[in-house]
Parts: sequence; structure tokens; C-alpha cells
Amino acid sequence: MQHAFIVSDRTGLTAAAMAQSLMSQFPRVDFHTRMLTFVDTTAKARAVVDQVREATVRDGTAPLMFMTVAQEAIREVFRQEELEVFDLFETFIGPLEQRLGTASSHTVGRSHAVGDEAAYSARIAAVHFALQTDDGLELDHYGRAELIVVGVSRCGKTPVSLYLSLHYGIYVANYPLTGDELGRRTLPPALEPHRDKLFALTIDPRRLTQIRSERLPGTRYAEPATCQQEVAQAESLFRSNRVPLLNTTRMSVEEIGAMIVNRVPALQQR
Amino acid sequence: MQHAFIVSDRTGLTAAAMAQSLMSQFPRVDFHTRMLTFVDTTAKARAVVDQVREATVRDGTAPLMFMTVAQEAIREVFRQEELEVFDLFETFIGPLEQRLGTASSHTVGRSHAVGDEAAYSARIAAVHFALQTDDGLELDHYGRAELIVVGVSRCGKTPVSLYLSLHYGIYVANYPLTGDELGRRTLPPALEPHRDKLFALTIDPRRLTQIRSERLPGTRYAEPATCQQEVAQAESLFRSNRVPLLNTTRMSVEEIGAMIVNRVPALQQR
Repeated sequence: MQHAFIVSDRTGLTAAAMAQSLMSQFPRVDFHTRMLTFVDTTAKARAVVDQVREATVRDGTAPLMFMTVAQEAIREVFRQEELEVFDLFETFIGPLEQRLGTASSHTVGRSHAVGDEAAYSARIAAVHFALQTDDGLELDHYGRAELIVVGVSRCGKTPVSLYLSLHYGIYVANYPLTGDELGRRTLPPALEPHRDKLFALTIDPRRLTQIRSERLPGTRYAEPATCQQEVAQAESLFRSNRVPLLNTTRMSVEEIGAMIVNRVPALQQR
Repeated sequence: MQHAFIVSDRTGLTAAAMAQSLMSQFPRVDFHTRMLTFVDTTAKARAVVDQVREATVRDGTAPLMFMTVAQEAIREVFRQEELEVFDLFETFIGPLEQRLGTASSHTVGRSHAVGDEAAYSARIAAVHFALQTDDGLELDHYGRAELIVVGVSRCGKTPVSLYLSLHYGIYVANYPLTGDELGRRTLPPALEPHRDKLFALTIDPRRLTQIRSERLPGTRYAEPATCQQEVAQAESLFRSNRVPLLNTTRMSVEEIGAMIVNRVPALQQR
């Protein structure tokens, strides 16, 4: 077991992403991470140092430290203690200053702050739009959608739609294909006028059976035969209507979201 | 204007977080970022090199390149071209291998992959829980909540609840305080049994007036006097019931979420 401390003077989101990326390259090490966020005074930094010392004594080995601390005075606390730190700012700010020919501000991390207020408000509006149009609700708002995610029930439309709205500020609706709609060769009438905005998700029928069984066990909805038929019909409908299709079986919402943005050029010009 | 290319062999989420953190330290530079994700073959890497060359000729200066590419063969393409790259893996994997005394897998970035399937399913279940209990719906599910976010209408409860469920997998409900409930000195009966799970958000009444006016202009709901009174009553209720309180006026959902987790120890043991 290897402890990893994620230290940040703000949210710790960047430090956590950096730590996860690096740690995922060591699949055989059993990492236990601990978030130490909003470490924005030298007193708090000293308290972190105490925790590092304690962990070192207890474990017999020092915890890894992944850090995004922009303020020099706080970094100096860790430097004086001669702790070994993987520090994003320490490592890259110098070369970046040289490359850009200008000094950095050394202010507390602001990368997840509101920043541009209009852009931020638009992102929150996108979240409310995704909620309002979730699961085929409020079809008359589809004109405002930038993307309409389609697929059978529980293939992952809702979490991905919320993620795309929250993270990228994209106006995303989602529409579940059910019953009669699955048996046809043409798209449902509500979707037809918006076919350029459609993106379809599909999933392995066995995985779908698992997911539906957790939700409504023992129902026809959750039966393997139902899941198999619905997925086959949906895939056939998407293919014959040339709707871009992604199999999400082993993908996370973040991966599905990034893949959709990667495959839909209109979503990249923002 | 300074172009920045964000290059990743997978989602680009870590590279983007790293780039944003570093670029936010140069507030006077006008960065234009471009995401180049799923660059997972040497052919795709060579296509990126072509885009870098084009941008360099067009702008008269090379774009910055922020990179998370785990595969050595792909990094080699950029190295051969002698492009200047801020590369998370190149920089940190060597020291980390030495520190852990083991070789890294050098596999394509998997830090946003599903990984532990049970943990991932729990995260998705948390998203559905947040949706189900949004805006004071399904109160009988509050027993399963780990956190109940409370506050007046449009103070930011819904986006934060969704974010906490999506990013951290926390079971979050949210409950809007309205009308009579605001005039009382005691918590609403639905919340009383769950008071240990409550976390209150508040907001500057002028900002609340703006937000409500965008939603329902010209209504009593959006009037400055209404917003001022509701916020004052809510804050008084939270203080007299010792509900932890956070003013979200200038904070992003990511900051609010990280701050809540930072302030509620029960949410950190996961």
C-alpha cells in the first residue's frame, strides 16, 4: 500500500487529475489517495507537513505528494522540509515563463474559478437545459439543442448528457427510444427535423440486462431477450439512418463525453 | 494571441486541466486552446505535427503544446520533430518509476476509464439519485442521502448536486426553501431528521436578482426586495440551526463542490 497525498491551494482538481494519470501507469501498486485541498496559507502547509511526517513514520515510507500550489511562499514550506514533491507549477512555470517571455502571476490557483462570467452562466444554463429536456421531456426545446443523444433506456444517455452540459457547457437533450419506435425503419417524428444533431449510444445487451436488472429486477424490461432485441433494433435504426453510433459498454461518462466531442466537429468550435 | 494545443492519447481531460492551471498563471496572455484528443497512433501523431507546423507558419510562432501521452512510440514522433512540449508523462514518469522502484506500464492513458466497475456503477447510481431527489422531490429517499444541499431557489443547489454526484459519486439530494419555511425559526419537518447531512448555500441577493430575472423576468420572484428578504431569512434560519453555510456568489460548481467536500469530513472517507 502506497499513500499518495494530493495537495492544492485551491480545489485540487488539477492535482487529482495529474495524480490519477500518473498512478494509472502503475496498475500493480495499491495507491491510497488523500485530498488536501485549499491549502492556501503557510500555517495550513505546515499542518500538511505534519501529516506527511506522521504517515511516513506509520507506513515506514513517505507518501507520494502530487501538488498544484501556485504561491511561492507555500511551496517554500515544502521545499524547506526537503519533501519529495511532484509539483506541476514548480516544474513547468519556469520553462513556460521563458517560452512566453513574461512572468507568471504566482497567484492562488484559479483554473476552476468562474473566470468569464458570461461563459460560466452559459454553462449553468446548459445544465438546466439538460435537466429540462432529459428523457425526452419538453420536445419543443429541441431547436435550442446543440446535440441530441439517443438510445434505448439505460444505455447511459442521462449521465453523459449531464456531463457534457456541466463540463463543456453544451446544450444537450436526450431521447429514449422505446416500444414501437424501435420496430420502425424511420426516426421518430420528434427527432426527424433535428437529425443533424443526433448522436446514438449503444451498449452490450448483457451489460444492459445487468443495469436494468439492478433497477427493476424480474421485469420484462430487464429480461435478456428484451435487451437483446431492443439493442439490435436500435442499432439497425441508427445504421440505416446514418446516425453516428458509439458503443459505451466499457466507457466512463468522461470517455463517452470526450469521444462525442472528438467526433462532432460542430461541438469543438466554442 | 497564443495558440495552445492540448494533445492526449485519450480524453485529454488531464492535459486540459494541466494546461488551464498553468495558463491561468498568465492572465495577460490571450490563449486560444485547441483540443487534440484520442491521438493514439503514430499516424495521428504525425497529423498533429502537421497542424503544429501549419499553425507555426500562420502565427509566426509555435503553439504551446501540453501533452499527456503515455505511449512511448507516440511521444517519440514529437521528440523526433524537436517540438517543444510540456509533457506530464515524459516529465514525471521517470522520477516516479525510480521512487516506486517499479516500471510503469506505458499503456494508453486510462485515468478516466471505468477502472473499478462497482465504484463506477455507484457513481452513476449517485447521478440518478441526485436527479430523482432534485428540487425537493422524493423526500422519502433522504435516508439514503449522504448530503442534502439546502438554500433558496436558484442559489446553485442543482448544478452543485449534479456535479458532486458525477465527479465524487456522492449521494446528494437538494431541498429548496420557499414561502412559509423561510419565515420560521425551525427547519422544515422533512429536513429535521436529517440535520446532520445538511449543507446550506447562500448567495449575494443582487446576484440572485440577476439570475432569477433571466429566468422569470418581471415577477415578484425576481424582485430585488424578494431576493433580499429570502436570503436574509434563509441565512438566519441556517445560523440559528447551525447548518454549515457557504456563500457561492463568485464560485464555480467545481469550487463549491470541492469546498463542500473539504468542509464535510464524512464525505472524504470514501
